[in-house]
Amino acid sequence: MTKTRLEAFSDGVLAIIITIMVLELKTPRGTNWEAIRPLVPVFTCYVLSFTIIAIYWGNHHHLLHTVSHINSKIIWANTHLLFWLSLIPFATAWMGENHFERISVAAYAVLQTTCSIAYYILLRVIAGSHPHNTHLREPLEKQSKKGVISLLLYLSAVPAAFIHTAISASLFFLVAVIWLIPDRNIEKALKE
Amino acid sequence: MTKTRLEAFSDGVLAIIITIMVLELKTPRGTNWEAIRPLVPVFTCYVLSFTIIAIYWGNHHHLLHTVSHINSKIIWANTHLLFWLSLIPFATAWMGENHFERISVAAYAVLQTTCSIAYYILLRVIAGSHPHNTHLREPLEKQSKKGVISLLLYLSAVPAAFIHTAISASLFFLVAVIWLIPDRNIEKALKE
Amino acid sequence: MTKTRLEAFSDGVLAIIITIMVLELKTPRGTNWEAIRPLVPVFTCYVLSFTIIAIYWGNHHHLLHTVSHINSKIIWANTHLLFWLSLIPFATAWMGENHFERISVAAYAVLQTTCSIAYYILLRVIAGSHPHNTHLREPLEKQSKKGVISLLLYLSAVPAAFIHTAISASLFFLVAVIWLIPDRNIEKALKE
Amino acid sequence: MTKTRLEAFSDGVLAIIITIMVLELKTPRGTNWEAIRPLVPVFTCYVLSFTIIAIYWGNHHHLLHTVSHINSKIIWANTHLLFWLSLIPFATAWMGENHFERISVAAYAVLQTTCSIAYYILLRVIAGSHPHNTHLREPLEKQSKKGVISLLLYLSAVPAAFIHTAISASLFFLVAVIWLIPDRNIEKALKE
Repeated sequence: MTKTRLEAFSDGVLAIIITIMVLELKTPRGTNWEAIRPLVPVFTCYVLSFTIIAIYWGNHHHLLHTVSHINSKIIWANTHLLFWLSLIPFATAWMGENHFERISVAAYAVLQTTCSIAYYILLRVIAGSHPHNTHLREPLEKQSKKGVISLLLYLSAVPAAFIHTAISASLFFLVAVIWLIPDRNIEKALKE
Repeated sequence: MTKTRLEAFSDGVLAIIITIMVLELKTPRGTNWEAIRPLVPVFTCYVLSFTIIAIYWGNHHHLLHTVSHINSKIIWANTHLLFWLSLIPFATAWMGENHFERISVAAYAVLQTTCSIAYYILLRVIAGSHPHNTHLREPLEKQSKKGVISLLLYLSAVPAAFIHTAISASLFFLVAVIWLIPDRNIEKALKE
Repeated sequence: MTKTRLEAFSDGVLAIIITIMVLELKTPRGTNWEAIRPLVPVFTCYVLSFTIIAIYWGNHHHLLHTVSHINSKIIWANTHLLFWLSLIPFATAWMGENHFERISVAAYAVLQTTCSIAYYILLRVIAGSHPHNTHLREPLEKQSKKGVISLLLYLSAVPAAFIHTAISASLFFLVAVIWLIPDRNIEKALKE
Repeated sequence: MTKTRLEAFSDGVLAIIITIMVLELKTPRGTNWEAIRPLVPVFTCYVLSFTIIAIYWGNHHHLLHTVSHINSKIIWANTHLLFWLSLIPFATAWMGENHFERISVAAYAVLQTTCSIAYYILLRVIAGSHPHNTHLREPLEKQSKKGVISLLLYLSAVPAAFIHTAISASLFFLVAVIWLIPDRNIEKALKE
């Protein structure tokens, strides 16, 4: 019951975060190329952030699937994660409307690093609360490994933005690819 | 459990998409006809998009009703669909605020075609994951047939917008009618 | 299962409708009385609409509580109701920002009349689909009676707005009171 | 069933309230310090209100966890609480955009006092409806005690804002700390 409600609240917040980003796609006045052009970077950022939040939702879902009980620490680690994720629409809009200006790209990378840390904390808290849950071991190890790699890639994207923002963009893209590649073990865990 | 959460997330996103569209109905200053008139096309688009998203919700609901298990492919096909659906409020506002200007109508038709394709992919992925589920066969066949017809109608609405936008509008209307006509077989499937 | 999802989608839409209305309370620049004064009518409208939507949520909840199965007709009657309810934030903002100008009050009354009709249709469709459900009889009769009275009061508020908007406002207030008065029978039905 | 839906609706409203606040973080034009500086107070208020609403969600969740049945009184006490909570995004934005001007801080304190009262009413109504539920006793006593302390702290923050707004800010901070300190008894109650 408790777990259901934690999932419901997280789903609600994630669904709203992913959807209100579309409000940043301000309706252009006019239908010619001049009117649409400023939307191209905003739209690109939307696709990126939508993918990242969808990955978080998927991972969150896999992680909680095998969790057996919830305590206050898990609730707060989860709320902490949701707080940082809730800032993604703002960072997305800022980066998009400033046409990938380097400080805005670095800020986006900082936020994604913080979100990765928050997710990693949630992972550790859940692992610590379920020391004997063998079903959790596999997804935890997979997500931990991928999580640390993502964190390092996002962290590298911060200074990279000051060399060339395209490097940061490639790193963001790389993280998405790492998570989107199908993962046989998670599949297997789900089937059990 | 897994299926419940996929439905909850989808319901959340669809509920938000369908409701934030109303934010595009900007409160007019004043209450005379001059103030209200610009809202007429925006409102017409709202009714159209509300109906289309409600139909997606209904179909999604019928489709997942008989699904027995969820895998990563289904999760991603579903997220892919939600991505395109999330753009409907933007396309709706653009078409409404530009008073059915032909490029905006064509863009709306392109988006609806893409949504149809995304729904069709979800349908195929679910069918592929449940080869022996006989309860799924009937809704799948019905939705596939109607889905392909819708897709073709939406696709025709793209060039039609450049001849006369009223043709595209009629095609949008036609698709809605096709889905709103009660379907005895889906009813029957639900009763089982 | 099916019923759960209909409730979840309705809850989502109602939760969003009730909450996005607060976005119409535009943050005033400054903290003196001059800055706050224009918010008074907007806030009054917010309280009114919040109460009305909360009543719809409560009634919807009581009604579906004893429903045993869902069919396409119920789904569409429910969607039809949600459509009209989704326009309440717009009508609320229009009435508030125009300081209860008579046309905006009449429009609000028209919308509430339409919502009442939509709710009554849902009531009839559910009653028609459950001819032998004795648990439904009592809430149905109660809600039907109150529903018809509300509808007539809202309808009277349309012409009343052109005599004096205070009459319409009193009628809106009266409808809220009718529904907020505790109803022993619904309580009893819930306990069973 | 009934309880599930009350939780779902409350979760929906709370998730939306907590998330739409981010819309007040208006995307700055430009990426230099001048452009970002006005966001600092708005962001501080966002962190504060996010924490407060997350605490309400956590407490609401603990409280309803051991509730066995729902009646009309509980539904209305809950709706009454949601109404006041729904005004938090507005009060947050007002305080942030006016850079903690004393009247806006006092207004924020008044709203938080009212929310505390509304929560206390819900607590009493639930306690009154479950006179023999021993599982409820412990969370009720804990939340009542902390609730009254919070209420008094918020109430003191109202006049304090006119002496120095930093005193009010410290009181808001103190309330958050009181609730965030882990509470062994609630943990214990959850485990049962």
